Amino acid sequence: MTDVPKRRYVVLAEGRFRGAKTAHGVLRYGADEVVAVLDSTLAGGSVRGVMPGLLTDPERDAPIVATLEEALAFSPTSILVGVAPAGGRLPGEWMETLRGAAGAGLEIVGGLHQRLAPEFPDARVWDVREPPAEAPIFSGEGFGVKSKVALTVGTDAAIGKMTATLEIEGAAGRAGISTAFVPTGQTGVIIAGWGVCVDAVVSDFVAGVSEELVLRAAESSPGLILVEGQGALSHPAYSGVTLGLLHGSCPDCLVLCVSPERGPGYAGVPRPSPARAVRIYEEVAALVKPAPVVAVSANTKGLSDKEASAFVEKVAEETGLPVADPFRDSAEPILEAVLKAEAKPKRAEEFY
Amino acid sequence: MTDVPKRRYVVLAEGRFRGAKTAHGVLRYGADEVVAVLDSTLAGGSVRGVMPGLLTDPERDAPIVATLEEALAFSPTSILVGVAPAGGRLPGEWMETLRGAAGAGLEIVGGLHQRLAPEFPDARVWDVREPPAEAPIFSGEGFGVKSKVALTVGTDAAIGKMTATLEIEGAAGRAGISTAFVPTGQTGVIIAGWGVCVDAVVSDFVAGVSEELVLRAAESSPGLILVEGQGALSHPAYSGVTLGLLHGSCPDCLVLCVSPERGPGYAGVPRPSPARAVRIYEEVAALVKPAPVVAVSANTKGLSDKEASAFVEKVAEETGLPVADPFRDSAEPILEAVLKAEAKPKRAEEFY
Repeated sequence: MTDVPKRRYVVLAEGRFRGAKTAHGVLRYGADEVVAVLDSTLAGGSVRGVMPGLLTDPERDAPIVATLEEALAFSPTSILVGVAPAGGRLPGEWMETLRGAAGAGLEIVGGLHQRLAPEFPDARVWDVREPPAEAPIFSGEGFGVKSKVALTVGTDAAIGKMTATLEIEGAAGRAGISTAFVPTGQTGVIIAGWGVCVDAVVSDFVAGVSEELVLRAAESSPGLILVEGQGALSHPAYSGVTLGLLHGSCPDCLVLCVSPERGPGYAGVPRPSPARAVRIYEEVAALVKPAPVVAVSANTKGLSDKEASAFVEKVAEETGLPVADPFRDSAEPILEAVLKAEAKPKRAEEFY
Repeated sequence: MTDVPKRRYVVLAEGRFRGAKTAHGVLRYGADEVVAVLDSTLAGGSVRGVMPGLLTDPERDAPIVATLEEALAFSPTSILVGVAPAGGRLPGEWMETLRGAAGAGLEIVGGLHQRLAPEFPDARVWDVREPPAEAPIFSGEGFGVKSKVALTVGTDAAIGKMTATLEIEGAAGRAGISTAFVPTGQTGVIIAGWGVCVDAVVSDFVAGVSEELVLRAAESSPGLILVEGQGALSHPAYSGVTLGLLHGSCPDCLVLCVSPERGPGYAGVPRPSPARAVRIYEEVAALVKPAPVVAVSANTKGLSDKEASAFVEKVAEETGLPVADPFRDSAEPILEAVLKAEAKPKRAEEFY
């Protein structure tokens, strides 16, 4: 959304920048600028130097510095805690850095489960995972959204739904299509500067909050609304979050995110095959509003180019759908399928 | 569960006893005794006199009284606010009655969205909808439960899942089968004296809380665990709650609750036919653990006997399953089907 003033971030990632996925997301996709990364173990370098391949936009980069004082020279507005230190809770040194940042007038932005507002009662704090105080129940208003709505879904959690969504957004932007990205998880929310972590919402309200996010995205009448998916219908711990988002966001079509077999899934529960996942997502979506799976996003991370092509081909054959790895290759085939998707009736129509 | 001391309830239902469904549930099914109902508009009568048909157990009844003073003569331990007055928030007179009850040493039990603990800081208060402070993530331990687990599901919310579950429990008790009822909504929790309102739990934890409830019920090694269902996979606002409970409770089999056509459903979304619901519940359950629908519970409230039989027959023909209205007729056909259900593999087995 455009009504949020831009942030200039210092990213606090002491000793952990290489594994700081939220920081990587903000650096690659963020609507806000990262002016410095704080990691004394990599100080003196730059993001581009340390993580070649992360930044595709040649205008993006950030220096890595050793101290808060150095970072302040780049006039940040906010300090981002986007990676949990070993042990979970923030250690004393990190708290001290945050106190220093607050003292320098910076906003503290926390993407962790641990809420920071109670720790810094006098600072401006944005706890990204804090759900909205007033959450609505699903109303059905989402059925009336005029923009085409696409949602990413997956055969597992942490399979690349956010990345796929953002790469499709990028492709749409390059094609001149007005697009709104709807963030539903902490990294997505930090990247976009708005949104709700739907997994932190009381279950009765997940569909209503998802609907409201889409309604808000629709306010600027974009040609395309891209909703970041969460979890998986087949994930035993998080399937309820997935379904609340699937029904609540009232999508017109779905993009299925898959990866090659990764061994037994969470709690030993297997991931469904892509074809089975397509069938079940479509059946379950259609209970409320029909939404066909129009393309598959393949996460081929770790495969050779040859293995990756073979995997993409196999999934295409199995599902009969356009398949692409939007990170390794291009999101254009997926975008094309989304744009071709028919506008569907606005809700299910079979009455009993 | 058996480790909770019995309550003796006064039910506060001033002017609203006839529509007080939670009170009716506690009176008909409660593990705790109702010693008096407070409704001055019906004072002098008894529950049995005012609502013939509600109480099937001849030993159950309660006097209806006009004042708290009269109610105190029956030595209550607790006062239950089980019906929301018109307007939602409790009016001044109700608050005064509750203050009087607290002053007399009674525990205040609230089943409404509005929390009562903050209003009565010095009283013992049980806010039934308050979720547990420490909620677990689903672990998979539920796959190892030895007792047979059955869950009620439905083609809509408020279609009779709790009633069906409790009637099956009653039939099992009469057949001498040790049975544990797992309450997942406010009335069920008040009836049983334990449990969690899963729709009030943060969505990330619904499956974990559901699993934990079943593990707790399994501690006494009952022959049968009956889990009260919530919402419906086809309900656009609450489907996420339903799926978290479906996957988290790891049921071995399902009982589908249906009713005759009631016009367009929530937000204009139609209810699925019983046959379609059977197919989709089975497919979605099987993503985590196979659980066939073994019987259908038909809610024929409002139909004539002839219409009711015709409906039961129609659903039986459509689904090929045993169908009964456990309230109008008997839960025995449903119980029989549950007892015959095969012990299924403890989790899904198809790997991709």
